Amino acid sequence: MGRSTATAFVPGHVTGFFSPEWRDDPARSGSVGAGITLTDGVTVTVEPAGDRRITLNEEPVDMAAVGRVLDELGRQVHVIAESPLPLGTGFGVSGAMALGTALAVNDGFDGDRTENELIGVAHRAEVEAGTGLGDVVAQARGGIPIRIDPGAPPHGEIDGVPATTTVEFVTFGELDTASIIRGETDAIRSAGSAALEALLDRPTLPTLAEASRRFSREAGLITPEVAEAIAAVSAGGGEAFMAMLGGTVVALGDGLTEAGYDAARCSVHPAGATVVE
Amino acid sequence: MGRSTATAFVPGHVTGFFSPEWRDDPARSGSVGAGITLTDGVTVTVEPAGDRRITLNEEPVDMAAVGRVLDELGRQVHVIAESPLPLGTGFGVSGAMALGTALAVNDGFDGDRTENELIGVAHRAEVEAGTGLGDVVAQARGGIPIRIDPGAPPHGEIDGVPATTTVEFVTFGELDTASIIRGETDAIRSAGSAALEALLDRPTLPTLAEASRRFSREAGLITPEVAEAIAAVSAGGGEAFMAMLGGTVVALGDGLTEAGYDAARCSVHPAGATVVE
Repeated sequence: MGRSTATAFVPGHVTGFFSPEWRDDPARSGSVGAGITLTDGVTVTVEPAGDRRITLNEEPVDMAAVGRVLDELGRQVHVIAESPLPLGTGFGVSGAMALGTALAVNDGFDGDRTENELIGVAHRAEVEAGTGLGDVVAQARGGIPIRIDPGAPPHGEIDGVPATTTVEFVTFGELDTASIIRGETDAIRSAGSAALEALLDRPTLPTLAEASRRFSREAGLITPEVAEAIAAVSAGGGEAFMAMLGGTVVALGDGLTEAGYDAARCSVHPAGATVVE
Repeated sequence: MGRSTATAFVPGHVTGFFSPEWRDDPARSGSVGAGITLTDGVTVTVEPAGDRRITLNEEPVDMAAVGRVLDELGRQVHVIAESPLPLGTGFGVSGAMALGTALAVNDGFDGDRTENELIGVAHRAEVEAGTGLGDVVAQARGGIPIRIDPGAPPHGEIDGVPATTTVEFVTFGELDTASIIRGETDAIRSAGSAALEALLDRPTLPTLAEASRRFSREAGLITPEVAEAIAAVSAGGGEAFMAMLGGTVVALGDGLTEAGYDAARCSVHPAGATVVE
């Protein structure tokens, strides 16, 4: 039985709108909503070791979801993550590190779990750590995921917008995911349900952007800097929305550059998370 | 509302083992089984037109599943497919053309269907045409799909082997899919169920190859040329299996080249079918 270094890639994920759905069982908890997975993501390498260390871009990080994945898989490893995405600003980096760790540990230690089982391990870890509700299942799928029912396979149900695009983004700062998704969420739930209905009625990228903009206002989550950037993109005829939950604006195409922002650029990632040979 | 040329890419798919599952509802019919999606696939372009024409590599083809997709979406178009994969030899070309047509028509005609809805359109068309049972849902997912329950979303259930590899293949000739999946299938069903159980017990690429080899023998589908090529790969320490349903041998890594065959080479495709910008 092997014990060797193994690597997985997990796309980034920006959520445009969501509604948290808590159940007693973390595998059935999660969120409904929609977002975009990104070619910018997280590469996670695990190395067999006698102790446990987690780094992101060579800095030690405390990542509760990754610890829970290692607990469940029963392994001591060094988790070495590399990503161009900033942490805590709505790109699903913690979900990506949990899912990437699950895939890489299974691959490096002759694991005997299916993809759905590993998605379940990472999803439950993220829900129990309180750091995310829908990123893991979206990142496992790729594309432009619509989360119709919450939870990990086989409980959740996921669909997609049949489209692709380049995207741009700028980040103005962090929001505290755990305090928002565990706090008063009536306005979020109501706005999230309305946005999901609008998107399923017309599952296109412009609808996703428009429904997400309305969601961020109605849910009371939009910040002044984000609102200003979205307005600037709209004024130029572009489409942009706020990434949940972070102070990040995402534009379809080159809308942020057109509006004068210094934006990072990537594309919709066509694939879900995978081990890398 | 737009009417414009649009393009989709659909990976090829080789099935290693399967068990046909017929229901009254074609959306719930399909197969359980497992296989590998391939970076070699089918690029499908649709052009608005006053009539209907279907070509594959510039040759007119009669493809009942594609016709049914166009009927359901209510469009007259030219369907222009390009592929390095041979037709009728187990690569899922007909499923790919049905799914690619559905995605491209939706994209080019301002369609308002989700990915799951378009997968359903293509899956039902394939089942009703009798040309395939599991390719469409596998090609919509990508990777190394394990079809646990038959049917299109939301009825089917699909999992995956968390791995990737390069693959090689050689083709010795065609088999008639429709006559086999509509014929006497008791031996196929029994062998397919055993293979699925073995793979879920240990979801790795070597198990997929081994379970598929046993399936092709127990189901009585293996042909002499295929058996000889698989034995040659095994003798060299490699892993190979027969693609269902066609006279095609698939090897993991470079097992066919090692055994002296002149094989085509590609890789596991990490993504499902997508529109192409």
